[in-house]
Amino acid sequence: LQQEIGAMSEDLIGYAKLTQDALRTVVRDAIKVALTGLPGDHHYYVSFRTHARGVQVANFLASKYPEEMTIVIQHQYDGLEVRDDWFAITLTFGGIPQRIVIPFSAITRFYDPSVRFALPFDVVDYFTPSLDANEDVLESELTDTIATKPEAGAVISLDAFRRKK
Amino acid sequence: LQQEIGAMSEDLIGYAKLTQDALRTVVRDAIKVALTGLPGDHHYYVSFRTHARGVQVANFLASKYPEEMTIVIQHQYDGLEVRDDWFAITLTFGGIPQRIVIPFSAITRFYDPSVRFALPFDVVDYFTPSLDANEDVLESELTDTIATKPEAGAVISLDAFRRKK
Repeated sequence: LQQEIGAMSEDLIGYAKLTQDALRTVVRDAIKVALTGLPGDHHYYVSFRTHARGVQVANFLASKYPEEMTIVIQHQYDGLEVRDDWFAITLTFGGIPQRIVIPFSAITRFYDPSVRFALPFDVVDYFTPSLDANEDVLESELTDTIATKPEAGAVISLDAFRRKK
Repeated sequence: LQQEIGAMSEDLIGYAKLTQDALRTVVRDAIKVALTGLPGDHHYYVSFRTHARGVQVANFLASKYPEEMTIVIQHQYDGLEVRDDWFAITLTFGGIPQRIVIPFSAITRFYDPSVRFALPFDVVDYFTPSLDANEDVLESELTDTIATKPEAGAVISLDAFRRKK
């Protein structure tokens, strides 16, 4: 029985999940660097599902960004705490400090514009509120507003792991 | 001071290393699956630096493949042992079982042809013998010889993490 060249089998190992789980540790390690201050021009855009399991965020923010939120970790953050499965950070919105807790499993995208390093993630474990909401970007109080859209060339695409047949 | 759009900074976080370290755990997890038998058509090509730190291999194999070796984990393996930093496996060469110990840090490439999943790695910590040797592929005793060259589309390129400026 000759195997057809190029025939693709079903992924029974689960490479996509293994890879995503592994790459979430990259996000954790990068955020850990912010504990002692980000070097050079490095700063992070962290997008997460507002209603993913374990996310803690003020109600008014959750109402404003019911689907997805993006925070920026650059200069104006406080009380950063990084654990194995989540991190917490205090950011200021409208002059009021707000504590936000984000499990790494809730993160949909990590992006460092200074070197155009981006990691996209699937988030499956979240509750979708019955609201007609699109993605929202939360800008916090930053002086500079570098575009959140990364260059395509630097984005590691996980589509390669999702192939079927 | 207006920041030039598209200007790239130096990577002071070390994303390339963080990413590679993370993805080596994918290799470990995949090889762990082989402890109970690989499902479906899954099988692995594991390439490693013959003289990387921690590699243990019979002298005649190291002489034959002084630079790099590629083993295949499919049907005919025995005594698979997987730890945090290395794995060991017994493969048969010329009818003789040979024990091979491979630290994950010595692996240059992992490839599963059944779903064309490939991960390339840099290996820096190894001793290069003063021999004029190219890459060698060690075929062991396999009945089928699926090409080791993956389709380009399925290879996750780490070049994106190595960009400078």
